[in-house]
Amino acid sequence: MPAYRDVLVRIPEPDIDAGRKCQALLDLKTKPQGSLGRLEELACQWAALRGEPAPDLPRKGLVVMAADHGVTEEGVSAYPSEVTGQMVANFARGGAAINVLARQHDVRVQVVDMGVRNPVEGLEGVRVHRQGPGTSNFTRGPAMSRRAAEEALSVGALLAQELADDGITLLGLGEMGIGNTTASAALTCVLAGVAPDVATGRGTGVDDAGMVRKVDAVRRALEVNQPDAADPLDALAKVGGFEIAGLAGVALGAAARRVPVVLDGFISSVAGLVAARLCPRVTPFLLSSHISREIGHRRVLEALKQRPLLDLNLRLGEGTGAVLAMGLMDSSLRILHEMATFSSAGVTEKTRRR
Amino acid sequence: MPAYRDVLVRIPEPDIDAGRKCQALLDLKTKPQGSLGRLEELACQWAALRGEPAPDLPRKGLVVMAADHGVTEEGVSAYPSEVTGQMVANFARGGAAINVLARQHDVRVQVVDMGVRNPVEGLEGVRVHRQGPGTSNFTRGPAMSRRAAEEALSVGALLAQELADDGITLLGLGEMGIGNTTASAALTCVLAGVAPDVATGRGTGVDDAGMVRKVDAVRRALEVNQPDAADPLDALAKVGGFEIAGLAGVALGAAARRVPVVLDGFISSVAGLVAARLCPRVTPFLLSSHISREIGHRRVLEALKQRPLLDLNLRLGEGTGAVLAMGLMDSSLRILHEMATFSSAGVTEKTRRR
Repeated sequence: MPAYRDVLVRIPEPDIDAGRKCQALLDLKTKPQGSLGRLEELACQWAALRGEPAPDLPRKGLVVMAADHGVTEEGVSAYPSEVTGQMVANFARGGAAINVLARQHDVRVQVVDMGVRNPVEGLEGVRVHRQGPGTSNFTRGPAMSRRAAEEALSVGALLAQELADDGITLLGLGEMGIGNTTASAALTCVLAGVAPDVATGRGTGVDDAGMVRKVDAVRRALEVNQPDAADPLDALAKVGGFEIAGLAGVALGAAARRVPVVLDGFISSVAGLVAARLCPRVTPFLLSSHISREIGHRRVLEALKQRPLLDLNLRLGEGTGAVLAMGLMDSSLRILHEMATFSSAGVTEKTRRR
Repeated sequence: MPAYRDVLVRIPEPDIDAGRKCQALLDLKTKPQGSLGRLEELACQWAALRGEPAPDLPRKGLVVMAADHGVTEEGVSAYPSEVTGQMVANFARGGAAINVLARQHDVRVQVVDMGVRNPVEGLEGVRVHRQGPGTSNFTRGPAMSRRAAEEALSVGALLAQELADDGITLLGLGEMGIGNTTASAALTCVLAGVAPDVATGRGTGVDDAGMVRKVDAVRRALEVNQPDAADPLDALAKVGGFEIAGLAGVALGAAARRVPVVLDGFISSVAGLVAARLCPRVTPFLLSSHISREIGHRRVLEALKQRPLLDLNLRLGEGTGAVLAMGLMDSSLRILHEMATFSSAGVTEKTRRR
């Protein structure tokens, strides 16, 4: 049995009572009740997911999975596929946007080559779990076999559990893959039930002619493959990507260890949606960081009933929005642990009018 | 001549060219152009305000001004006035929400007693610039004299310049004052031209009966004092507060030194609006951090043509939203300074189709 299936049955329910106790602790702090809005909600959510009223500050990690996509043959991206491998090298050397933000917020980054077309050899710190030199062109047949999809899911699930064993308690999802907004659009059509023109955006910045090709590629992918909405593994294999499958596995593995998962933009949220369709119990563990400029993202977040924390018009991916949101998650836990209470600070509580 | 008037003529224009050069630098970085959305805009705005294409990371400060309000006699707040002084003591001891967030983001906090009713003696680090034991009840006459308003403005303008001399390059506005959402609502009515019921919210959480009293107090303040919308100093003196006047002065003094000013919630944004009415040249230096749950805030940000960075349902004040946004400003400058370029990282640029 593939390793990822093993974790599905081990994903716990949130501990509602721990969340309530966390709110009671926050209500003792020197501020009007609820006045820190979503920071308070985040702390309580975190408490319920971790299963304790006052959990420690998060120890933060981010998995960035990279892979290439055969569909780029159809001229759907503004950048050539060789950029995927080049960016993996950039991640390894610490020069990408995600490295900069991860350093700011003290987030450990784990880069994984899930199948880039032109890998750079011998990069320090990059895990290699290549499922092939990119997926097949899914306008002509399935992107990958069902078995490859299951293997990629298992890679993610095992990695998440390894990171949890290593002390990580909050895990973000990041990705890199020229062509992966096309795969994500196709998966959104299947799993959120929307039309190709609603799910497809400009990605890294394709021009008008490229947009026409991109929507058409998504439409043909659905026609040729007939992915089954009731079988998320079928959809993932037929129109997904190795990095998307891997990240769905990360979400499942993390949730099995009570490690909340921070979604980034369109692609990582689609990975979250795949995970949620494979196992609805993962859903409460998914935290949406931001709403991206990529138009399909909103539909995916709606399907996941997610309300993003940030709206900064980002469309980079890599996990950048996820890491920015982790700064807010840190804030919420620091409030819980460091603020004085009304009684410790000698501050008068709310006037009770009789 | 009061000190604050001195700075009005020294507020420079933003350096549009420096902003453009900053965008050109960002466009060399390993990401699709513009893909970091508002983070890129922030960096360019910062460059234009500082007057250099690649300014250093911000050295961050926050001024928290506290004062009491005579209008609390009308039963407009859920908390008694004594809380203002108690919270100043809490700030001094590092136990308030703003202290926690300022530690997280490495922000220097300067607390100023502008006139709390029950001051706590001998608090370390608190500046004392008391203009009286709180304002007069402005439902019966002016909150303060025109001269007191000018003195409070000058206190702020001088403090901002002192902090700039000390190396601070980004300055947030924070406040504490039971009753100050009532004063802010009255100022919003005058300066943004809206009705009392549109400008008045629940503040720290007043109940329904208190809300009726609060809207009524604002209406009477306007009737009794007839503040002149064309004379912002008149409005400030008649229906403002000592901390609001002081913070307006901080904004003016900071802008005169090319130090961008981060607005927090409703009250500090009203202080920004007062500053902008006194001297429109300050306006580009005002950066909105978040939109608060307090209903009048939206009207104030509209009047300032501001687009907030965050929407987290905060309504605490103290500068909490301002400091959270400073984390994003740090991110934008780190991106500018730390990211690799396409050429340094050996990453292929966008495909140019012929």
